[in-house]
Amino acid sequence: MYIGVDIGGTNLAAGVMDDLGGLVMKRSLPAGADRSTEAILDDVAKLVNELRQAYPDEIRAVGIGVPGVVSKENDYIYYCPNINMVKVRIKEEMEARLNLPVYADNDGNLAALAEHEIGALKDVDNGMLLTLGTGIGGGIIVDGKMLRGAHGLSSEVGHMVIGESDVLCNCGKNGCFETFSSATALIRETKRRLASTETPSVLRDLEEIDAKAIVDAAREEDPIGKAAYGWFLDYLALGIVNFINVLDPRIIALGGGLSNAGSFLLEPLEERIKALLFVKEFPHAKLVIAQLTNDAGILGAAFLARQKSKG
Amino acid sequence: MYIGVDIGGTNLAAGVMDDLGGLVMKRSLPAGADRSTEAILDDVAKLVNELRQAYPDEIRAVGIGVPGVVSKENDYIYYCPNINMVKVRIKEEMEARLNLPVYADNDGNLAALAEHEIGALKDVDNGMLLTLGTGIGGGIIVDGKMLRGAHGLSSEVGHMVIGESDVLCNCGKNGCFETFSSATALIRETKRRLASTETPSVLRDLEEIDAKAIVDAAREEDPIGKAAYGWFLDYLALGIVNFINVLDPRIIALGGGLSNAGSFLLEPLEERIKALLFVKEFPHAKLVIAQLTNDAGILGAAFLARQKSKG
Repeated sequence: MYIGVDIGGTNLAAGVMDDLGGLVMKRSLPAGADRSTEAILDDVAKLVNELRQAYPDEIRAVGIGVPGVVSKENDYIYYCPNINMVKVRIKEEMEARLNLPVYADNDGNLAALAEHEIGALKDVDNGMLLTLGTGIGGGIIVDGKMLRGAHGLSSEVGHMVIGESDVLCNCGKNGCFETFSSATALIRETKRRLASTETPSVLRDLEEIDAKAIVDAAREEDPIGKAAYGWFLDYLALGIVNFINVLDPRIIALGGGLSNAGSFLLEPLEERIKALLFVKEFPHAKLVIAQLTNDAGILGAAFLARQKSKG
Repeated sequence: MYIGVDIGGTNLAAGVMDDLGGLVMKRSLPAGADRSTEAILDDVAKLVNELRQAYPDEIRAVGIGVPGVVSKENDYIYYCPNINMVKVRIKEEMEARLNLPVYADNDGNLAALAEHEIGALKDVDNGMLLTLGTGIGGGIIVDGKMLRGAHGLSSEVGHMVIGESDVLCNCGKNGCFETFSSATALIRETKRRLASTETPSVLRDLEEIDAKAIVDAAREEDPIGKAAYGWFLDYLALGIVNFINVLDPRIIALGGGLSNAGSFLLEPLEERIKALLFVKEFPHAKLVIAQLTNDAGILGAAFLARQKSKG
């Protein structure tokens, strides 16, 4: 059995996965993202040890997913935007605490790994997952294997520049995919439209505007909701067509909170993608909704542990 | 031995490659790009047959590189912008004419294959070639193999959208990489700057402005040449950083006419790339100049024939 840990900006979640990919036990703690790296890692160890007591002698390795830039080769964290984890030798640190083999990767990549093992990308030779959440994460599969890159730093899909924006990305660049097609970007664009026009909108009555409210408003033909969601979809299609042109995946799975829109996401997106293809009758990636929701991170981390500990 | 054919907008070039990758004989004909597809393919057959007579019974297969969108799986040409080759079953057509096994691919991809076999990408596990010419072509190597994609349509690197432009790309989209960082784009931008300002420039004295003249002017600190070349480099760095973020190659080789600028290309580019990296101390792709110049297309096509006919 394997333990998967999903380090998020809000929660630290962990679970035990059996050898067939079933999640048999879960635990979580608040992330306390502003605390020292030490304190966060100690809490991760606490979670793992709690799970381990339920399955003594059965846990073979631990996988950890991190919301930031992680070298997949060296299990080294370069940088996390939303939690105090910068330049952390996470493998070393956690192995010292746990006395078990530990492996780490970026959370988007691990969610893609989980989809590839048991979800929407199962048996897919060339595919990718895009998670549309606070940012845009994801992972890429080439010839049946997760793409890692020469330095273990591939698949930073949210930081592909696709246009020009009036805000800078947290990476310092202008025009990153996630400044257009993440939940954060959709909310920002909606607020901008609300502030700069007098167009009536149900969204004006809300105390707090989240992505779901905007999508719901768009569905009801609310003019501001519809325009902002259309803007978001235009850029999402541009970004996806970049991946089609460069990687030519068979399937692109969409995950993250925004993927809850289901066919209200897939249908207008497919229409926009068709219009952007070089040759309109190109065979091109099928868009689907990701299958593993909240547990993708834990499962992906556990699959990483399984994969790496099998060599 | 294998025959490689490079179908270009200007010339049809072909050569015989020995089993070690040496080019032992070359022939070419004008492309006559506006003629019927039939007439062009007949000329390709003529070239191949001429070469074949010199090595009777030794030619095992023929590879063909095409300046357009080719399915690498089906040896089928979807579209070429600069030569009359649209929806051509090139494998069938040429095998009927030659009675030899024929394989086809995009010319940029084949140039990358040649660099991978005997050039700047030799023994590179993850790498890519970008050819900066009339457009931007190239090919991608993942885990030691050419990336093909699910439908054989990957690596259309010039059509990755990276910004917003005042001209549309010939693919119909706005903001494609090749509308910024090809020779065509550099010339267009230089002419625009010459027309819209009165800034003195040595380029005003030229009857015909080509990319080499602009690079030479930039080297001599000519204000228009320097500004246009800087603009070109800014976008080239953006596009390359997209590939670094998505693919994390070990080496990126730059080919095509603009790569003749050598260190005057590599040095300012590396500086710009460093400034765009998410984490500045990231290990990232080394930039080099491609090694095979004019013959990369013929050699790549011959290597394709070797690779495919060996199964």
